[in-house]
This record gives sequence, C-alpha cells and structure tokens, in this order.
Amino acid sequence: MKMNAQHGTPERIVPIRVTIWNEYVHERINPLVARNYPKGIHEALAAGIGPYGFRPRMATLEQPEHGLSHEVLNQTDVLIWWGHLAHDQVSDEIVTRIQMRVLQGMGLIVLHAGHRSKIFQRLMGTTCDLKWREDAERERIWVVDPSHPITYGIGEYFEIEPEEMYGEFFDIPAPDQLVFISWFQGGELFRSGCAYQRGLGKIFYFRPGHETYPTYYHPKVLQVIANAIYWAASPHGVQPVYGEVPPLEPMPGYPLKKM
Amino acid sequence: MKMNAQHGTPERIVPIRVTIWNEYVHERINPLVARNYPKGIHEALAAGIGPYGFRPRMATLEQPEHGLSHEVLNQTDVLIWWGHLAHDQVSDEIVTRIQMRVLQGMGLIVLHAGHRSKIFQRLMGTTCDLKWREDAERERIWVVDPSHPITYGIGEYFEIEPEEMYGEFFDIPAPDQLVFISWFQGGELFRSGCAYQRGLGKIFYFRPGHETYPTYYHPKVLQVIANAIYWAASPHGVQPVYGEVPPLEPMPGYPLKKM
Amino acid sequence: MKMNAQHGTPERIVPIRVTIWNEYVHERINPLVARNYPKGIHEALAAGIGPYGFRPRMATLEQPEHGLSHEVLNQTDVLIWWGHLAHDQVSDEIVTRIQMRVLQGMGLIVLHAGHRSKIFQRLMGTTCDLKWREDAERERIWVVDPSHPITYGIGEYFEIEPEEMYGEFFDIPAPDQLVFISWFQGGELFRSGCAYQRGLGKIFYFRPGHETYPTYYHPKVLQVIANAIYWAASPHGVQPVYGEVPPLEPMPGYPLKKM
Amino acid sequence: MKMNAQHGTPERIVPIRVTIWNEYVHERINPLVARNYPKGIHEALAAGIGPYGFRPRMATLEQPEHGLSHEVLNQTDVLIWWGHLAHDQVSDEIVTRIQMRVLQGMGLIVLHAGHRSKIFQRLMGTTCDLKWREDAERERIWVVDPSHPITYGIGEYFEIEPEEMYGEFFDIPAPDQLVFISWFQGGELFRSGCAYQRGLGKIFYFRPGHETYPTYYHPKVLQVIANAIYWAASPHGVQPVYGEVPPLEPMPGYPLKKM
Repeated sequence: MKMNAQHGTPERIVPIRVTIWNEYVHERINPLVARNYPKGIHEALAAGIGPYGFRPRMATLEQPEHGLSHEVLNQTDVLIWWGHLAHDQVSDEIVTRIQMRVLQGMGLIVLHAGHRSKIFQRLMGTTCDLKWREDAERERIWVVDPSHPITYGIGEYFEIEPEEMYGEFFDIPAPDQLVFISWFQGGELFRSGCAYQRGLGKIFYFRPGHETYPTYYHPKVLQVIANAIYWAASPHGVQPVYGEVPPLEPMPGYPLKKM
Repeated sequence: MKMNAQHGTPERIVPIRVTIWNEYVHERINPLVARNYPKGIHEALAAGIGPYGFRPRMATLEQPEHGLSHEVLNQTDVLIWWGHLAHDQVSDEIVTRIQMRVLQGMGLIVLHAGHRSKIFQRLMGTTCDLKWREDAERERIWVVDPSHPITYGIGEYFEIEPEEMYGEFFDIPAPDQLVFISWFQGGELFRSGCAYQRGLGKIFYFRPGHETYPTYYHPKVLQVIANAIYWAASPHGVQPVYGEVPPLEPMPGYPLKKM
Repeated sequence: MKMNAQHGTPERIVPIRVTIWNEYVHERINPLVARNYPKGIHEALAAGIGPYGFRPRMATLEQPEHGLSHEVLNQTDVLIWWGHLAHDQVSDEIVTRIQMRVLQGMGLIVLHAGHRSKIFQRLMGTTCDLKWREDAERERIWVVDPSHPITYGIGEYFEIEPEEMYGEFFDIPAPDQLVFISWFQGGELFRSGCAYQRGLGKIFYFRPGHETYPTYYHPKVLQVIANAIYWAASPHGVQPVYGEVPPLEPMPGYPLKKM
Repeated sequence: MKMNAQHGTPERIVPIRVTIWNEYVHERINPLVARNYPKGIHEALAAGIGPYGFRPRMATLEQPEHGLSHEVLNQTDVLIWWGHLAHDQVSDEIVTRIQMRVLQGMGLIVLHAGHRSKIFQRLMGTTCDLKWREDAERERIWVVDPSHPITYGIGEYFEIEPEEMYGEFFDIPAPDQLVFISWFQGGELFRSGCAYQRGLGKIFYFRPGHETYPTYYHPKVLQVIANAIYWAASPHGVQPVYGEVPPLEPMPGYPLKKM
C-alpha cells in the first residue's frame, strides 16, 4: 500500500476542493479591468491554477449568500478571496461562517486588496491597513523563508511589472511564517507573503494582484497560489472539545458542589 | 543627565497610568465571591499592585461608557480586564474603542475569564475557547521563557491552590511569546501566560483568578501582573501613516493618471 | 495529469528516503533495553513506520563515518536521530556535514535523549538542557497546535506509561511551531513536540522514547514520527546564492573601485 | 518608594554595564577607515551612546582573552560586537564563554559584519551567510514592528547613504521579533533588525555599519543601538535547575531502583 505523501493516510487522495470567491465588480464597471480579465478575476485564477490539478468552484458577491452557503463551505478545503470595492457589502453572518470554517480546518488564501476584507480583519484582529500607490512600478518579491513549501519552484526572487505599491507599516499580527517580502522601485517594501495558523486552519496572505494590471497571468504568481493551496490543504488534527470536562486523573471529591 | 532605563528618554519618568476594569457582578450576587473580594476584584488588584508603585484608576461595567470614555482611555498606558458573566453587556462601540487604543500603543492585560471577553476575541480573531473544571485543584505555573521580563522574580515555577482548571486546546493564535504553562492536578495543562504584539500595543493574557478563590492575594500572581504592566507600558514607535503616499525615490511620470 | 498533493509537481512521487541513525549502545550492554529492542531501537522504529510506506536505511555510531557518508546524506530526505550515552563519540566533522545538509533542505527528527546530541545543540545554539527523572511515570501528551500536519490522527491527547520525565526549563530557542506539550504525573510539564525551520530544512524534536521502556511500539508515537517525516520532507525553495552580487537595478558608477 | 519602571524592583537603578568589543583591525591598516574612525569603531560607538547615559568598557581582539575575561563578562549586562576580518582569530574558548553568559542573561548586540562572527553563528546554529555589494548605495530602514521598544524615537523609516548592501537570503533562524527591514537602491532587501531570546538572554542583530562609511555617527543608528541596550538589559527570570530532580507530586515508590 502506497501512502499519500501529504496526508500520511491513504484515504485522502481525492482532489483538493478549491473555491474561488471574487467580488466581481471592477470587471463589470471598468473597461481597463475588463480587458485584463474579461470573464472576471476568478475565471482567470481558475484557468491559471488548472494545470496544477485544481478544478475550482466559483462564488461571487451577487450570488445568494455570496455563493458561500454552509454546503459550499463544508465542501471547500481551501477558499481563495479577492475583494476591493465592496468589502462592506459582505454580510457579517457570512463572515462569521467563514471564520468558523477556517478555525475548523478550511484553508484561506487572501489576495491583494482582500487585506481590508471583513474576513481578513476578523481573523487578524487588526486594521490590516497599509500604504499604497498606483503608479505601475516594478515589484521584486524576495523569498525570506526557503524552507516553506510555498516557495517551491519560485527561485530566490521574481519580478512583477507593472504593479501597485503596498508599503509598511502593514497593520497585521507578525506572521507565524514570513515567506516573501516585496521590494518596490519607489522606495518602499512590504511583507507580501504571510502565513498564519488559526484553530485547525491555515491562512496565507499574498499581496500581488491589482485589478488594472494582468498580474494573475504571471507564472510565478500562479505557482505561489498553487503552492499555497497545497499547503493550506495539508492535514490537521481533530476538532477540540470545549467546555466543562471531568478530570483525567483521580481527583478525590470530584465533582464538588458548584459554588 | 540620567536617562530612564526603560524608555531611553528622560521625559517619561512619570508614573505608568493603569486602569483596572472589572465587570463587578459576581461580587455583588455571590456571597462566596463577596467574602474573597468585599470591595470587588478591582480594588483587590489595585491594593495588590500598590507596592509596585501603581495608583490605578477604576472602571466598571455599570458606569457610563463602562468607565472607558475616550478621555480615560487616552490617559491610560495599561488597561487590565476582568470579566466573566456579562461579556455580552459590553458595548461593541467601546470594544472597538479599546481595540483602536491598543493598536495605537496602549497595553492590555486580560485576566482569567476575560479569555471570552469581546475585546480579547476581537484582538485575537479566534473563539478563545477552552476546557474548564471548577474543582479547587492545584495549579503549578511553569516559566518556559525565562528571558521574558514578565518572569522577573517568579522563580522556576509557583503554585496556586485552590484554582479552577483551564485546559487545552486553547483556541488562540500561537502567542508571540509563550511565557508560562500551567500544570493541573487533574491531568490537563494550559498555556497560561501569553504575550502578543498588535499594532503599537502589547497584550498579555494571564490565566489565574477564579472569583471563588482568593487568587489575587497570591504574591506571585501580583508580581506577574506588576511585571506585565511594566512590560506592556514599555516604549513603542510612532503611529504609522496609512493610505496613498508619493514615492520616496524618483519615479518618472508619477503621478500617473488614475486608472 | 494528476499532480502530487504534497509537492505541487508531478516529478516527486518517488518515496521519501528516510535514514534512521541510532547510537546502538544501550541495547548491547543493558539486558533490560535489549529485551525491549532486541534488534536495536533503529530496527524497531523502522518496523513501526513501515506501514506508513517508509523503507528506511539504517546507520549506527560504530560504522565508518557513523554510517553517514556524503553519499548517504545526499540520498536522505529525512534523518531520524536517537543517541544518549555516546554523544561525545560522534565526530565533529560528521556533525558539520549533517548541519550543512539540514540547511540545504534535509529534514531532521531528533528523538528523546538526542536533545543533548551534538547535532541538535549545534542547530539550536543553546545547551538543550532540561530536568529529568526515571521513575516510570505517566506522560500525557497534549496537542496545542491542531493546525499542524504532525497532529494528524493523534486526537486531542494521548498517554504513555511508563515513561521517563523531562521537565522545564528546556533550554531551546522558542519553537517556530510548538505542537505538543507533555503533562507528567510527578508535577512537571515539557514542550515535547517542537518544530523548527533552519535554512531550507525542517527540524522536529519529539520527546518520548526512553530506552528502558517500550515507547517505540506505541501506535500514537509511531504516527507522530510518520507525520513528522511527511512534514520534514515537504517541499522547499532553491539553494540561495551567497557572497558578492551585482545590482539588479541600474546603479550608475557600479562597480566602484574597492575601498 | 518609587519603583524603577524597567525592572519592577528598586534595587537595579544602577547604570547598565555595557562592554563594546571591536576586533580593531581595519582602523589600523586602512587609511580610509582610519579617517572615519581615528580612535577605532569602539570609541566612536562609545561616544555616540554616551548621551544616552552609558559609559561603556572597551575590549579588543589583541587584548589578553580578547579583553573578555570571566570577570569582565560577569560585570557586563550588554555586550556589543563588531568584527569582520579576524573572526577566525577569536578563540573558541572565549566564544563558548560568551555563549554561556548570554544563556545566563547577558544581552548581546551584534553589528553588521558580525553576522559571520563565531559567537553569532554559534548562537544561531546556521551559517548566517548573505549577499553583499560595496557600492555606496542608499539604504532605507523600515520599521515593521512598531510595538517593539527598539523602535522608540525612530519614526517610520530612516535612510543611510552611503552604505554597503546586504541582501537575502540571510541564513538565520526566523527572528523571534523582526523589527527592521532594509530597502536598497540596487534592488535588494534585508531583514536588518532581528531580535532573539536564548536562555535568559536577549540578542539583537543590527545590520548597518560598514567600516568605510561613517555610519556610526548617524543619530538614528545610535538611537537604535541605545534602545537595543535598554531592551537587552531588561529583566529576566532565574537560572534554571537542570538534571535529575525529585517529583513535586506524591509518587508512590519513588525513587525507583535505577535501571
């Protein structure tokens, strides 16, 4: 019997179930964005990661429950999030639902302007604010943790041009693993690949992807996203028990009369 | 000129301004708790840290704005939080106000049942749930990071008996510094001293302090809280600029026409 | 084409190459240990992880180059280390060789008394000292990071009895991920599952396995070791370039005359 | 009684005892360096941090025991290290002596080319290798953790020009706190302010300070070094007990006959 290298068990050789969520607004109101992503950023991402073996499901803001029903989330191993203009239109109930699924083990990949999404702010506990400038500059993304699986196949660095600038201070918790840092032509830098663990779940924030530039056709960007899916879908432990529990060792007199 | 060892500047030899917040409900409805803390947990804490040079301000749930007006918070260097029964009665607006002050540099010390407070959940981004059992058992708190200032004067471990048990899994982000772990007689253990940095602020979660036991008279518990105040009040950097910024290096053609 | 879930590339479906190193001294001089491990701890480990798909190579202290020639190490994805009595007999040259292979991406799993091995001390930079007591007590190993792949299939905790006690303070760098903490009957606790990243390599320290007890037949212990192999063999980035490099951006006047 | 804000106890208002170690070779063989630092880098550093209240002791390579006798180290709260050409001439015995003092609570600040010093490599457990280029370029040092005391008074960033470039990958353990990242004109970036805790001690690596440039007269560089001294001298816990210990809880039958 050959075991699956990722999961340590044979049963999960089934494909990783990816859902791509896109607010899908820019593409329908801005011709420049529409030219880059005629079917929407979600479709471009899905096509881009297809060669890595993924057949993602799509979800968008306008759908009922934003396309993220309990059923969809329960069948999702990794959720990818792209939003920008309409963060406020995402319902708090759905945000809580996603948060709980992450804590129960679903992976979450937050892209670019998703740093201000409700779900990312909720999970980080901070404003996730930053500096920015949209002047089509050169970004050079450096690997600073080559032990991390997300760096597989990436080389020491790669360049994206043109891109929007994001600059520090980025108001996030210090990443559990800081994977990439971006150098910008205009003089700023940014922690652009940030890995977190929360509950049973894994979260990856990845900076690139401004809607007016064709970033999601860049092979290295797609490789990072594919790597991040594999990492975020890697195994985890069991759902914990919370609340009142009896002792595991002999405790004379337990249970006490409650005080 | 003699500089202040903590701050690297002479100007802040003024005392650290501590505010103790207590929901102050148990003490008024449960005679057992009233016997331990006749003037309230807040007054016991204030008396206990007095010898360390602190003259705390008090705030309780029932006060207007829960005693945490903008003015009070702006004059607070470190806020101590004890709550249990009435987490839901704390207004979301005040929670947001505290969160913003922490991100701007105010220290926050969350005690015991405060793990389920809105402010701690908000800052952590997780449920902060755990196992528990109220059977008056022995807790032995071990130092696992003796480089941390919060361990000053504590020794290798200390014991509290009786105490309530809190057990893992504790649904928090992995602490930025894990300082203490508790051993419990009944067979559980718990990450009981957890330090975090968020924005410009420092946060410390400290487990002990069940209301039906006289924990806040324990000298080592008081020493830890005093140490945590010093640590949480230690210096920080400047408030960052967020939003659109011009380049720091020559960028021909900037500003671009916005797309 | 079906991609490999772990590596994000099809080419590495070849088995993970594991080498188990055992100093192999106790088993030949202590009848009690020989009864537990008649063919040596290494053979018991190899048999125990066999069902997970591994066919480990063996290496012992007495072999030329301790069985760890350049060729063997270059063909090893994950090295498992058990030593206790004879740490000093391991040659410094071989220690350096292992260290360099870890920094270049080989996984390393250090078991039990290996905490005082030269290779673990070298990679940690600390004494790795601890408290201990050999009195056949009960150890309860708690998961404190259920997001970690090493916790797959482990449950919330598991017990080993009898085991040797290891107690804090454990003089190691704070783990990059703290996965397990052990509760001991005698009143101590210990950070018993510690994950590190160094260079391109991944390191896992796992506490259980005193030679006079049959710990390495415990199914959960074997599951953790198998999980750790999968994790330590997970993908990494490229070998970095070090030393003098030309600029990536136009630098008028480069190269300068060296000063 | 007014307590000391840093130490939580009145007894340690005595000044922090700083020792500056310089290999002191460049300044005597390279006229360009001698022009920058006519009395040596150590004297320039001492003069620079004088206004912060420090009266450092000096130590250099050529002195007996490199100026770092047991007596000197035992009377040192924070050791500053600058070396470059002569790392190999530092005796292994002295390196071990410094390492043990750090683990027992002495602070250590490693500057610039000290990244390849024996003591830094020893404490990190990695090669500490990096990219470099000496072409007098502009370095912009960004604060990425404004909660850290080392950022006090620094602003969001500061610039040094001219400086040598250091680039990633920097082969160090991921810092326990990453405080500064440097942007370089030539296209690289570097984790240039890295804080670590080891044993009872605190370590700070700070990148700037190439000998052919007058970096150690830069007010912000001096402020960072002064802040780092305060931080590295902050309180710590007690020296742990290691080795065999009796149980803290009743263990029937202890001590066992040793097996």
